[in-house]
Amino acid sequence: MKEQMLPAEGKLGILLPGLGAVASTMIAGVIASRKGLSKPIGSLTQTGHIELGEGKGDRYPLIKDFVPLASLDEVVFGGWDIYEDNVYQAASHARVLDQHLLNAIRPELETIKPMKAVFDRDYVKNLDGTFIKQSATKWEAAQELIRDIETFKKENNVSRVVIVWTGSTEKYLEQSAVHETIASFEAGLKNNDAAIAPSMVYAYAAVSIGVPFINGAPNLTTDIPAIVQLARKTKTPIGGKDFKTGQTLMKTIVAPGLAARSLGVNGWFSTNILGNRDGLVLDDEENFKTKEVSKLGVLEDILRPDLHPDLYGELYHKIRINYYPPHGDNKESWDNIDIFGWLNYPMQIKINFLCRDSILAAPIVLDLALFADLAQRAGMYGVQDWLSFYLKSPQTQAGEPAENDIFKQLNTLKQTLLGMMQEQTPQAPAVNRAKATEAII
Amino acid sequence: MKEQMLPAEGKLGILLPGLGAVASTMIAGVIASRKGLSKPIGSLTQTGHIELGEGKGDRYPLIKDFVPLASLDEVVFGGWDIYEDNVYQAASHARVLDQHLLNAIRPELETIKPMKAVFDRDYVKNLDGTFIKQSATKWEAAQELIRDIETFKKENNVSRVVIVWTGSTEKYLEQSAVHETIASFEAGLKNNDAAIAPSMVYAYAAVSIGVPFINGAPNLTTDIPAIVQLARKTKTPIGGKDFKTGQTLMKTIVAPGLAARSLGVNGWFSTNILGNRDGLVLDDEENFKTKEVSKLGVLEDILRPDLHPDLYGELYHKIRINYYPPHGDNKESWDNIDIFGWLNYPMQIKINFLCRDSILAAPIVLDLALFADLAQRAGMYGVQDWLSFYLKSPQTQAGEPAENDIFKQLNTLKQTLLGMMQEQTPQAPAVNRAKATEAII
Amino acid sequence: MKEQMLPAEGKLGILLPGLGAVASTMIAGVIASRKGLSKPIGSLTQTGHIELGEGKGDRYPLIKDFVPLASLDEVVFGGWDIYEDNVYQAASHARVLDQHLLNAIRPELETIKPMKAVFDRDYVKNLDGTFIKQSATKWEAAQELIRDIETFKKENNVSRVVIVWTGSTEKYLEQSAVHETIASFEAGLKNNDAAIAPSMVYAYAAVSIGVPFINGAPNLTTDIPAIVQLARKTKTPIGGKDFKTGQTLMKTIVAPGLAARSLGVNGWFSTNILGNRDGLVLDDEENFKTKEVSKLGVLEDILRPDLHPDLYGELYHKIRINYYPPHGDNKESWDNIDIFGWLNYPMQIKINFLCRDSILAAPIVLDLALFADLAQRAGMYGVQDWLSFYLKSPQTQAGEPAENDIFKQLNTLKQTLLGMMQEQTPQAPAVNRAKATEAII
Amino acid sequence: MKEQMLPAEGKLGILLPGLGAVASTMIAGVIASRKGLSKPIGSLTQTGHIELGEGKGDRYPLIKDFVPLASLDEVVFGGWDIYEDNVYQAASHARVLDQHLLNAIRPELETIKPMKAVFDRDYVKNLDGTFIKQSATKWEAAQELIRDIETFKKENNVSRVVIVWTGSTEKYLEQSAVHETIASFEAGLKNNDAAIAPSMVYAYAAVSIGVPFINGAPNLTTDIPAIVQLARKTKTPIGGKDFKTGQTLMKTIVAPGLAARSLGVNGWFSTNILGNRDGLVLDDEENFKTKEVSKLGVLEDILRPDLHPDLYGELYHKIRINYYPPHGDNKESWDNIDIFGWLNYPMQIKINFLCRDSILAAPIVLDLALFADLAQRAGMYGVQDWLSFYLKSPQTQAGEPAENDIFKQLNTLKQTLLGMMQEQTPQAPAVNRAKATEAII
Repeated sequence: MKEQMLPAEGKLGILLPGLGAVASTMIAGVIASRKGLSKPIGSLTQTGHIELGEGKGDRYPLIKDFVPLASLDEVVFGGWDIYEDNVYQAASHARVLDQHLLNAIRPELETIKPMKAVFDRDYVKNLDGTFIKQSATKWEAAQELIRDIETFKKENNVSRVVIVWTGSTEKYLEQSAVHETIASFEAGLKNNDAAIAPSMVYAYAAVSIGVPFINGAPNLTTDIPAIVQLARKTKTPIGGKDFKTGQTLMKTIVAPGLAARSLGVNGWFSTNILGNRDGLVLDDEENFKTKEVSKLGVLEDILRPDLHPDLYGELYHKIRINYYPPHGDNKESWDNIDIFGWLNYPMQIKINFLCRDSILAAPIVLDLALFADLAQRAGMYGVQDWLSFYLKSPQTQAGEPAENDIFKQLNTLKQTLLGMMQEQTPQAPAVNRAKATEAII
Repeated sequence: MKEQMLPAEGKLGILLPGLGAVASTMIAGVIASRKGLSKPIGSLTQTGHIELGEGKGDRYPLIKDFVPLASLDEVVFGGWDIYEDNVYQAASHARVLDQHLLNAIRPELETIKPMKAVFDRDYVKNLDGTFIKQSATKWEAAQELIRDIETFKKENNVSRVVIVWTGSTEKYLEQSAVHETIASFEAGLKNNDAAIAPSMVYAYAAVSIGVPFINGAPNLTTDIPAIVQLARKTKTPIGGKDFKTGQTLMKTIVAPGLAARSLGVNGWFSTNILGNRDGLVLDDEENFKTKEVSKLGVLEDILRPDLHPDLYGELYHKIRINYYPPHGDNKESWDNIDIFGWLNYPMQIKINFLCRDSILAAPIVLDLALFADLAQRAGMYGVQDWLSFYLKSPQTQAGEPAENDIFKQLNTLKQTLLGMMQEQTPQAPAVNRAKATEAII
Repeated sequence: MKEQMLPAEGKLGILLPGLGAVASTMIAGVIASRKGLSKPIGSLTQTGHIELGEGKGDRYPLIKDFVPLASLDEVVFGGWDIYEDNVYQAASHARVLDQHLLNAIRPELETIKPMKAVFDRDYVKNLDGTFIKQSATKWEAAQELIRDIETFKKENNVSRVVIVWTGSTEKYLEQSAVHETIASFEAGLKNNDAAIAPSMVYAYAAVSIGVPFINGAPNLTTDIPAIVQLARKTKTPIGGKDFKTGQTLMKTIVAPGLAARSLGVNGWFSTNILGNRDGLVLDDEENFKTKEVSKLGVLEDILRPDLHPDLYGELYHKIRINYYPPHGDNKESWDNIDIFGWLNYPMQIKINFLCRDSILAAPIVLDLALFADLAQRAGMYGVQDWLSFYLKSPQTQAGEPAENDIFKQLNTLKQTLLGMMQEQTPQAPAVNRAKATEAII
Repeated sequence: MKEQMLPAEGKLGILLPGLGAVASTMIAGVIASRKGLSKPIGSLTQTGHIELGEGKGDRYPLIKDFVPLASLDEVVFGGWDIYEDNVYQAASHARVLDQHLLNAIRPELETIKPMKAVFDRDYVKNLDGTFIKQSATKWEAAQELIRDIETFKKENNVSRVVIVWTGSTEKYLEQSAVHETIASFEAGLKNNDAAIAPSMVYAYAAVSIGVPFINGAPNLTTDIPAIVQLARKTKTPIGGKDFKTGQTLMKTIVAPGLAARSLGVNGWFSTNILGNRDGLVLDDEENFKTKEVSKLGVLEDILRPDLHPDLYGELYHKIRINYYPPHGDNKESWDNIDIFGWLNYPMQIKINFLCRDSILAAPIVLDLALFADLAQRAGMYGVQDWLSFYLKSPQTQAGEPAENDIFKQLNTLKQTLLGMMQEQTPQAPAVNRAKATEAII
C-alpha cells in the first residue's frame, strides 16, 4: 500500500465548526508547539510510538515518523462560530490556557476568524448566537458552507481540507425516513426538514465535495445512511461520534480490567460537574439525552451481560451531568463502581477524576484531523471505525457492533497503520509449549 | 499438542503453606461452590470464556470447557500452618466470610487440618507460631516436607499435587552465592545458611519431587537460579511472585490506559490500610521492603520512562502500607495520580478501592493451582511466565523483562491456552485498506 | 420548673405514620437494646451527657439521668402504613438490619401491626399502597385517625402518646389560603382541598386531641398557621421538618467550621445515591423539589452571604439525589466543596460519606419522640425549635430565622434542658484579663 | 478594661524566624492587600465579625473595628533565615503565589532581607543552610538575636515588635531538667546543652526583652517552665504550638460534629502528601515524631474516650505524612473515618482535602501576630490559651487540659475579645420554658 499512499504535499486546512474552548485550545497548542513554547502531550500522532517487528523495543519509531502524516508546520486553521470572536478572544474567554501563553501567540491567534455559522436554536436551546447565516433553506446553507470551504482553500493556499465537528451537542434525534437515502436527505435539505440538524448540513456540505468529516459530539450527524452513502459515492472518509475524554475514557480503561479478572459489576454510578459552555448546553434535558445515549452504551459493549449473565446481568448504570459554574472548564467526575468477587462478596471502587475538558479533547481533535487526512491519501473511505479509539460512541460499518475497550481500539488503530505501511503484524508474545519446555536459564 | 496433553485423571491435591485468611477463603469457596451454595466469581478458570476463530462472539466457550482442567469436584486440600487451627477455625478467625456460610460447610472444613510448618521468626518478626517443625537443619526440614507431601498423597488418594504459597511475606533478601546452583543451595540447606528462607525450603522440597510450586508472596522463593535449575532437571512448573490483588491490580489496569492516550504522569502516590495478619507482618520494616520492591517496579515496566522521557521521565512513585486494625481483611487503597496532558496542563485522578484482600486473592490461588497442574500435564516446565496475569512481580525467563500490563498479560495467557490446544490465533480486527474501501452500508 | 414537670408515669405510646425502613429500624433497635442485644448508639437521649456547673468534667451526667425522660422499658410502638406488613416483615424487607438480629426479636416485632393509612397517590406518585383508609373526605379521615389513636391508647394501656412522621416525602406544596386559619383548614378538610396533603391530616388529628406531632419529612405538614394555632389552642408541642441524617448533617458540621476560619466558599456540589423507598419517591421531580428546598437553605443560613459578601456572595449550591438500587438503604453522598483562602487562592474539599439512611435516622426518631413527650410534661407547647438539632429545615417561631449550625443547635438544646431543670448555665471558658494576667505556672 | 488598653500607636514590627513559604506568602499577601491587589481572606482579624448584644445580627461589627488592632498599614516585616534570599526570592522559590502578583510588589518584597539564623543541623537533619550565625554558645546566639531585634526596631522606627516562629519542625525533644527554671535554662544556654533547640534560643531572646513570641511549629520552644516563668517575669505574652492548617483543621471541625450526634468512632486514618520544605523536613523520622505527637492528641481531647467508652473507647488513630515532591506546597490530605451508629452499625467518611499549606497558614501568622500585640497592650501576659483556635496542640496554663474543638476555641477567643472591651456576653439563645409557652404566632 505504501506505493499507493499519496504523500502529504502542500498545506492541510483543518476547519472546525465551533471555535470555542476545545477548538481554540487545540489551535493554540499547535501554534505554541510549533514555536517550541510547549509540547503536544496527549497526542498519539505527535508523541506516540509504534512497535514494529518482533520483540519488545526492537524497533519502536514515533508514529509520525512511521506514517506520512501532515506536519504541524503545514497545518492551517479555520472554522465557523455563532460568535464573531477571533481565536485569541475565544481562547481568552474560555479560560482554559494561561493568559501569558495566549499573549505570546496572540498575533497568530487573532488572524484566525470564524465564518458565520449555520445554527438553529431549536437544536441547542441554551445557546444564542449572533453570527449566523441567514439562509432560506438548509440546502442553501449547505451551498454557502461549500463556498466557505472553497474560499478558505484558495485564500490559504491549502491543498487538502478536513473538518472536525467541535460544536455543541444538539438535541436528541433518532434516525428517520429523511436520513435514509441521499435523495431523501437532499429533499429534506430543500424543504427544511426538522429532522436535519445543523451538524448534518455541515457533514453534507463537506462530504459532497470530498472533504473528510469527523464528528466530535454525540449528535447523529454522519451516522445516517444518507451521509454514509454519500461518503461512498465521493470516496470520502467519515467518522464519529463524541470525543472520548474524561469519565468515559476512565470507564473504557477500568471496565476491561474488571472483565479481565472476571470480577462482577452490579452498579456503576457516574456523575460529572462542569461549568463551561458544554455544561450549559447539557443542562437542557433534550441535549443531555443525546449525550446520555452516547455514554450509556459503553459498559454493555465492553462487559457483554448477554455472554456473562452471572457477572453483569444485573448491572445498573446511571450517568449524571451537572452544570456547575464554579469549575469552568475543569470538568470533574466521580464514579462509584459496585463490584463483586469470590462468592459474590461486594467491593467498591470510587474514582474522582479532576480533569480539564479541553485539555483532554484538544489532542483528540488534532489526531482525528491528521488521521482522517492520512486515510484519504491512503485511499480509504466510508466509516473509519479504526479511529474509534478517540470516540465515546463509535460509528461502525453497518451492522457491526462497536468496540469500546480502549486497549482493543488502540490495537486496531495500530494494526491499521501497520497494514497501511505493509509492515508485519508483531507477534503476540504467546509462550507456546515448545518455547516453554526449552526456556530455562 | 492436544494429543500429548495428559488428561486430568484422578484427584488433584492443592497444598498450601499458610492456611490463613486467603487459603481458608479459597477452600471454603470451592467447597461452597461444589455444593451450589455460592459461585466462584473472580476465577477465570471457572467463569471466564475464551474467543476462538474469527470475529466477535463466534465461538466463545468457557475456559474450563476448552482446556482439560481439573474439576473442582476432584480437588483435595491440605497445607501447613504455624497454628494448629483447622480450616473451619482459621476461616472463622479470619472473619472474611459470613459465619453462616462457614457453618453450612463446617464438617468439610474441620477435616482439613494443617501439618506442622517450617518457620523461623527471624524472617517474620511480627508473627509467633506454636505449630512448628523442630528440624535440626533446613535440609532435614525439606525432607520432612517431602514426607508430608507423600503422606498426603497416599492418605487422600490423589494422583497429582501442586503447591501455592499462601504464607506470609518474609523479610527482604537479595540473591546471593548460596542461591546460585543446586549444589550450593543444597549445601546451604545442610549448614542452615541464613540466606535460605523457609519459603525456599518448601519450594526446594516440592520441586525436587516434581510438584509444581507457585509463590504468592513477594519473597524470592523460586526466583533464584538454584530452584530454576532444579525445576528444569525435574521438569516441574514453577512461578511467582506476589498475588496481584487490590491496588496493584488497579495500577496495572489504569497505567496502560494512560499510556495508551499518551498522557504524562509525574506522580503516583499509593497508600493502603489493612488490618489482617498480612498488614501486621508488613508493619515491620524489613518485611515491608520485600513488598515495596515487588510493588514499585510495576509502573516503570508499563510506562517505560526510558522510551518516553517527556511523558514519564519525572515520575515519582511512592507506596505506603499501613497496619490499621479497624478494617480487618477489608483492605482499602487510596491512590493519587498526577497526570498531565496537552501543553503539560496538570490533572489528577484519585482512586479509592474498598476491597477485600482474601476475596480478591482466593480465586487467584485456585486459578494458579489449576493452571500449574495443566501446565505440568501439557509437558511445560520451568518458569511459567504466561501466568504473570495473576502476579504483582512476575518471575520471568532469565533476562526477559517482565510484562505488567494486565491486558497484555491476559492476551499472553489466552494465546498460551490456544497454543496448547492448537487453535488458530484469533485475528486482530485490523481494518486494512481493502476492507475499508469496500466497507460501505 | 422542676417541681412543675410532670413525671414520666405510665407507658408512652410512639405512633409512627410510615412503618418502613426508618421506623422498623428504630423499633427493632429499642427492643434489641431493652434485651441487651445491642446498644442505642447515636441517640443523645440514651448515650449523651450534659455538662453541669463550672469547668470541664466537673459534673457530667447522662442526659437521661438528668431529665425525666420516658424509659425505653415503658415505650410501646404502633403506627400506620400503606402496606399490611407487620414490623418484622417490614424490617426484613428493608434489609437494613442483620436478619439474625431480627429473628432474635421476631415475636416482639410481629405483634406490631400497622393500622390502615391515610394516603393519596397524588402526593407520592412513585408509591402505590394496598392498605388504605377509604374515607369520603379528609375530615372523615382525620376522625378515623383520632379513633385509631384512642383505640391504641386503650388497647395498650398507655398514658401518653406522641407521633413522629416517618412517612414519605410528599410532592411540593406552598402555603396557601386554606392553611391560614383553623377554620379555613377545617373547611378544607371537609371539602377535600387539594392543598391539604395526607401528612397534614395526621398532624391535624394528633394536635386536635393534644398529641405532640413531629414531622420527619420535608413536607409542610405542621409548618402552616392553622396547625400552629391549633397547637397553641390545645397546648400541644409540634416540630419539624426533615430528619437531618447524612449529607446535610455533614454540611451543618463542616460549613460552620469553614465560616469559623473565614474561609470563602464559591461552590458546593452535593450528590447522593440511594436505593431504598425514599430514593424511589424522590426520583419523582415534584417530590424531589420538596426535598431540595429543605436541603438548599442550610448553607445560606449558616454562611450568611448577606453579612459576608466577600466570602459567600458568589456561592453556587447544587444538590442532586439519585435513585440507585444497588445501594439499597446504604445511602452515599459525595460533596465537592470549592473554597478559597488567603488572596482568594482556591482549594477543594471532597467528602464521601458511606452512610446508612435508617441507621442515622432511627435514633433521631427516638430522641424526638422522647423529647416531645418531655416538652409536653414540662408544659411547653407550640413550635419546639430547640429540637432543630435533629432537623434539616427547622420550623421556627413565626418570623424567626432558622439556626442550622449544628453546634449552636446542640447548645440551644442543652440550654433548654438546663432551663427546664433550673440548673445554672455553665460559664463559657472565657479567659478574661484578670485571669490571664495571673495565670502563670 | 477599655480605658487601660494601650492604643496601637506607632508601627508594629513582625519578625519571623524562617522566611520560607509561609512567611513570604503572609508578607506578600499583606502588601498586596494594602495596595488593593488582593484580599486577606481567611484572616479573622481582617474579615471576621463579632456578635454583640442580644439576638442575631443585631450588632455585628468587624473584629478589627471592635478591638484596637494594629492596622495593616502600620506593619513592618523582618526575620531570620538560613538562606540569604530576600522575600521576593523566597516567595518566587516557594511557588505558592502567582509570579505576576509577586512581580507587582517586587520592590517591597526585595527590601525585606533576612538576618543570619541561629541554626543547628542536629535538630533538622534534612536542611542545610548557608546563612547562619557562628556563635560560640547558645547564650551568645541569644544575645545576638536580642541585638538583631533592637537594630530592627531602630532602623525601621517601630514602636512594638512581635515574633511568630515560622521555621521548621525540629527533632523530637521531651522536657528535661534544663528546661525547669530560668536559671537552669540560662546555664544550659551557656554550656550549649543539647536539650536546648534553636527555637528555644529565639524564644528566650524575645521573651527576655518583653517581645511576645508565638510558636507555629510543634517544637517545645515556649512550652517549658523556664520560658513560661520568664514570660511572667517580663510580663510578655507567649503561645503555641503548631499552626492548625489542613488536616487537623478538618479534624477539629468534624470530630465535634460526630460527638454532637453521639456517633461512635473506632478508626481514623489520616494521610498527607506534600512536597515543600516542610514535607522534606518531616521525611526524617525524628522530626516527624515531633509533628505526630502534636497531631495525635487532638482526637482524644475532643472525643474524650474516658467519658464515653462505648463510643470512643476503641478508637484507633493513625497519622502519616509523606514527602511527595510533585505536589509542592499543595498539601493534600486523605482521611478515612470509621464511625458507627444505631446498634453499632458501621459507616465510613472519607475526606480528601486539596489544600495549600501556605495559603492556610499565612492568615494564621498574621492573626497571631496582631492578637499577640493586642494582648500585650491589654496587659495580658503568660500563656495566651485563648489563641488555641489557631493551633494544633495548644499550650495551656499549667495543669489545664487543652481545648481542641474549634467551635469552643472560637467561642473562647470571642469571649476574650468581649471581655477586653467590657461588652456583655451575648446570651445563648436558650428557649426556656417561659418563652416557649408564650411563643406562639
